[in-house]
Amino acid sequence: MQVHIQDLEFKTIIGILDFERTTPQKVTVDLNITYQYTNNDFINYAEVSQHIQQQMQLQEFELIEDALLSLQKSLKKSFPLIEKLYLKISKPEIMSNCTVALSETFNF
Amino acid sequence: MQVHIQDLEFKTIIGILDFERTTPQKVTVDLNITYQYTNNDFINYAEVSQHIQQQMQLQEFELIEDALLSLQKSLKKSFPLIEKLYLKISKPEIMSNCTVALSETFNF
Amino acid sequence: MQVHIQDLEFKTIIGILDFERTTPQKVTVDLNITYQYTNNDFINYAEVSQHIQQQMQLQEFELIEDALLSLQKSLKKSFPLIEKLYLKISKPEIMSNCTVALSETFNF
Amino acid sequence: MQVHIQDLEFKTIIGILDFERTTPQKVTVDLNITYQYTNNDFINYAEVSQHIQQQMQLQEFELIEDALLSLQKSLKKSFPLIEKLYLKISKPEIMSNCTVALSETFNF
Repeated sequence: MQVHIQDLEFKTIIGILDFERTTPQKVTVDLNITYQYTNNDFINYAEVSQHIQQQMQLQEFELIEDALLSLQKSLKKSFPLIEKLYLKISKPEIMSNCTVALSETFNF
Repeated sequence: MQVHIQDLEFKTIIGILDFERTTPQKVTVDLNITYQYTNNDFINYAEVSQHIQQQMQLQEFELIEDALLSLQKSLKKSFPLIEKLYLKISKPEIMSNCTVALSETFNF
Repeated sequence: MQVHIQDLEFKTIIGILDFERTTPQKVTVDLNITYQYTNNDFINYAEVSQHIQQQMQLQEFELIEDALLSLQKSLKKSFPLIEKLYLKISKPEIMSNCTVALSETFNF
Repeated sequence: MQVHIQDLEFKTIIGILDFERTTPQKVTVDLNITYQYTNNDFINYAEVSQHIQQQMQLQEFELIEDALLSLQKSLKKSFPLIEKLYLKISKPEIMSNCTVALSETFNF
């Protein structure tokens, strides 16, 4: 089974520019989780999306790269059923004429 | 050939929360069917989309995972030409700041 | 190189239902062509999109499956540089609550 | 890690038709960069998007094919961390009823 969380949108401090350290900006997160569903043992999508938002707002990452690496570890720890994780974090408003994003696929 | 049904939208009872058992919510279903088209023997997309909507509204699944597993069986039974099936069920309104979905690919 | 023609939209007679044989409906075509670009010898995207629209409006196919098989042959004949072709034809208005489409990948 | 720049939009001279050589038209560029992120050594997405816009506006390519081949070289030269590059250039307004684009994947 694959769990998809799409266009998870919230505001957070993220980035390395001066104004990015003081002004929260909009981010969107997309995530695919692969796991084996057996005997009613499932991954709660509400808890996954809350985990991501809370961790990012708590840690206020500078680089999206570091946010991806940190979330990979904390998601696997909190949701050990995860076998494979695709994670993408977008900053839709930081550039005036495009959306920028970083993504990575993690196999456990 | 691949048959695609995209953004099939209807309301149904689905979910494990109290209010989800009493209030129908919007779901969207995306589906890809791989089959061999020969001699005018084709899969009727109208019948496939009706099958999905009827089964989900009849069975009122708690977990999307179980809806996927059930639809896999009933679709293959009703449309034996199906060789491969990708099925995705989304709940676009259950979370306030994202869309959640489950998907699976089935090979027959 | 890949040539992409996306959301090519026009009206045509297509389908097996009675009203589909008399009333043109909207279709959209998406296509990816893989070819080797060498020495300024390129595939003209304007000619490809005109070819598709003209053939579909001329032949008034009943099944999308047959439209895909016919276009595969006529496109390869008219544009011999094509090495691989992905073709998708959608009927966005035939169903009230979804978009239906058929697609196929052809290797030459 | 993958860096994504999506829907990078600007106007430039591009194309082989007479009016395309005199009137700038809208293009959109989508790009995926694969690279190894280590020790805070990252690819700056703002510099990448500026590079693409500047090169295309400076060189005023005739064929999108040539723009892709040129950008592949200049991006790798300016951002040597790039290991794999997917580049897509779209002309959303050149055809009245579709969007046309060219893409290519480059491995270094």
